[in-house]
Amino acid sequence: MRAVVVRPPAPGATVEEVPAPLLGPDDVHVAVVECGVCGTDLDIVAGKYGRAPAGVPYLILGHENLGRVVEVPPSAPGLAAGDLVVATVRRGCGACPYCRAGRSDFCATGRYTERGIAGAPGYFAQEYGERPEFLVRVPAPLAPIAVLLEPFSVVEKAIAQGEAVRGRVARPSPDGTGVAASALVAGTGAVGMLATLALRSRGYAVTAIDRHDESTVAARVLRTVGARHTNVAEGLAALGADRFDLVLEAAGAPSLAIDLIERLAPNGTLVLTGIPDARTPPLSVPAGALLRGLVLGNRAVVGSVNASHADFEAGLRDLATFESRWPGAVGALLTARRPLAEAPAILAGRDAGSIKTVLTVGTGAGPAPAR
Amino acid sequence: MRAVVVRPPAPGATVEEVPAPLLGPDDVHVAVVECGVCGTDLDIVAGKYGRAPAGVPYLILGHENLGRVVEVPPSAPGLAAGDLVVATVRRGCGACPYCRAGRSDFCATGRYTERGIAGAPGYFAQEYGERPEFLVRVPAPLAPIAVLLEPFSVVEKAIAQGEAVRGRVARPSPDGTGVAASALVAGTGAVGMLATLALRSRGYAVTAIDRHDESTVAARVLRTVGARHTNVAEGLAALGADRFDLVLEAAGAPSLAIDLIERLAPNGTLVLTGIPDARTPPLSVPAGALLRGLVLGNRAVVGSVNASHADFEAGLRDLATFESRWPGAVGALLTARRPLAEAPAILAGRDAGSIKTVLTVGTGAGPAPAR
Repeated sequence: MRAVVVRPPAPGATVEEVPAPLLGPDDVHVAVVECGVCGTDLDIVAGKYGRAPAGVPYLILGHENLGRVVEVPPSAPGLAAGDLVVATVRRGCGACPYCRAGRSDFCATGRYTERGIAGAPGYFAQEYGERPEFLVRVPAPLAPIAVLLEPFSVVEKAIAQGEAVRGRVARPSPDGTGVAASALVAGTGAVGMLATLALRSRGYAVTAIDRHDESTVAARVLRTVGARHTNVAEGLAALGADRFDLVLEAAGAPSLAIDLIERLAPNGTLVLTGIPDARTPPLSVPAGALLRGLVLGNRAVVGSVNASHADFEAGLRDLATFESRWPGAVGALLTARRPLAEAPAILAGRDAGSIKTVLTVGTGAGPAPAR
Repeated sequence: MRAVVVRPPAPGATVEEVPAPLLGPDDVHVAVVECGVCGTDLDIVAGKYGRAPAGVPYLILGHENLGRVVEVPPSAPGLAAGDLVVATVRRGCGACPYCRAGRSDFCATGRYTERGIAGAPGYFAQEYGERPEFLVRVPAPLAPIAVLLEPFSVVEKAIAQGEAVRGRVARPSPDGTGVAASALVAGTGAVGMLATLALRSRGYAVTAIDRHDESTVAARVLRTVGARHTNVAEGLAALGADRFDLVLEAAGAPSLAIDLIERLAPNGTLVLTGIPDARTPPLSVPAGALLRGLVLGNRAVVGSVNASHADFEAGLRDLATFESRWPGAVGALLTARRPLAEAPAILAGRDAGSIKTVLTVGTGAGPAPAR
C-alpha cells in the first residue's frame, strides 16, 4: 500500500509502497479516508523527534485520522463494515496503574507508543489494523469534519483539566451557579479554534489571539461564534489590561506561554497544550514577580497532553453541538484537502494561511466534499 | 496598652504605649496570650511592605495569634469569657463574590485588609476586639501549641489545593484507592514542618529539604514523624533522581521554586506558598524544557495564599491528631518564647537556628509553659 514514510531522526518524508499491515485475529481492518497534518508531523519531518517501530526501518507518519471499517473480527460486535471510525493515538505502557486503568494519557512511565509519532505506524497510509477498543465510531452526519476529532480530543482533555483545576477554587456564589468566566485562547490553529468553539459553547466570553488581521478564515470563524479576535503581532499589550479566568495556550512558544501567566485573573488557570522545543535557549524571566503573582492570586498552571477515549466521545458530542449552533464553522477550519502524493511538499513547511490541511487517502467511500 | 508598632514603609519596629482598641457593640474583647513571629513580619520590619490602617499613623504588627476571651457581646452565644481563641487574618473586600461568600482567601479584587499586615491592626498587643465570625475557639488541651494554628491554616489550605489539583488526574487504580504518593517539602521552617506532619498523617512518604545537617530541632522532629531529611546546601542534586507526586514550596526563593518543577513526577503538582520578593532580579530559565515537561507529564503548578475559616477548623483537628500520634512533636517547633519587650531585637533579623519564636504577651491566664 502507499504510505507517507519518515526515517527519524533523518529529516524529510516520502510517499512509498510499503507492506500492507499484518492484522491480528482481534484487529479491525480499516481503510483510511483522510488524515489531518499537524505541527507534530512537521516537527518529525524536520528531524526533531519521532521513532520508528522496533525492528522497522521507517515510521508511517500521521495521527489525525478518519477511516472506514473494511472487516470486523467476531470480538468487535459494536462495529460493522462501512462504519466510519477514528482511532486513538497512544498505546499505554501496560505497566503503570494509569495505563492499566485505560488512562494511558496519564502514563507514569513514559514507555508508551504513539501511532504515527513514536514506535507505532501511523495513518498516512491506505489501511491499518487496530483493536476495537482503540476505535471511536463516528456518526455519519459528522463525516465531513470527523478528521478533526483527534486534535479536538486533545482540546477536550485540556479544557476538562483546566476546569477541574478551576473547580478547586471555592464556588464564588452561594447558590453554586458561579460567575461569568472569561477565557483567552493563544493561537488560532486547529487546536486554538476548536478550543474557542468549545469554550464559547460552555458560555465563556472568549478572546482568541494570533498575529493576523481580520482577513483570515480564523478571524471570520471567530466572528461567527461570537469570540473576540485580537492581533498581538505587536505584543500582548494589544490586550490592554484584560485578565482571564482560563487561558489556553495552543502555540508551544515558551516566551508567550510565560507572558500568558501575567494575563491570569485572580484564581485563574493557564492550561498549556503546545509542546515547546526542549532546546529553546534559556529565557530571562521575572521569576520573583511571576511566582509572587501565582501565590497571592491563587493562580495555577497545568500541562495537558493526549486524551482519553472519553475525551474522543465528548468531542463527538461537542462537534454535533457546533454543527447545530454554528453550521459550517467547523468545516471552515479544513482549509485544504490535498492528495496523499502531495504530502512531502506539504510536510516540508508550515503554510501560514491555513488552519488544517487534510490529506485525502481513500477513494469512493470517502466523506462528502467539504463545503 | 503596649504593642509592637511599625510605620511602613519606614523600617524598624518599636514597643510603644498605644490606645486600647475601640470595641464595637458586636466585638468580642480578647486579651492576647502569645503571638508567633513569621517571615512576613520580618519583611514588614525591613520595609518591604505593610500598610497602616487608614487614618492611623502606625500599624500594630503581628498575625499569628492566640488569645483569651475577656468579654463577649450578646451576639456571640458560642463564646464565653475565658475561652481560648485564634483570630483569622484577612478581612474581605465585601465586593467580590468570593468575599461575599465568606471566602476572602480567594478575594478577586485584592482590596482586602489583613490584620497586622495591611490596613488593619495586628495582634502583637495586649488586647484586641474582633467580630465573633473571625474567631476560632481552641480546645484547652491544644493551648500550648495553638499559636501555630494561623500558619497551619495556610498549610491546610495549600495541601487541600494541591490535593484538589492532583484529584483532576484520573484515579490510577480501578478500585479508586490510588497509589502510594510521595511528597517533597522545601523548607523546614514552621510552614514546612507543619506541612510535613500533615502530609505524613495523610500517608505520604515525605522528604523535607533544607540547608542544615542532622543536628537541628527540625531534623529531630522529621525523624520522629518518619520523614526523610535531605540537606540540599550543595543543591537539589542531593535528591538524586527522585521525583515526587506533590511538592510543597515553603521557602519563597524563586530560583528554588523553579528548580522544584523538575522534581515533579508525571502527573505531579507543585504548590507554591512562599511569597517571593517581586524585585528579585530576572532569572535565566530553561523555559522550553520546563514547559515541555509540564505538558508531556500532565504536571501542574498552583499558588496558594491565606486560608478560610474551614482551614483553621481543619487545622485544629489535625493538631489534635499530631499530639496523639507524635506527642511533643508540634511543641518542639516552638523553639523560643520571649517577652514582648524583646520584639524589636527579634524582628531585626532571622535566627537561623529557630523554627518558631513566640512573643509572650499575656500574664497569668496564659497557656501552660512549653515542654
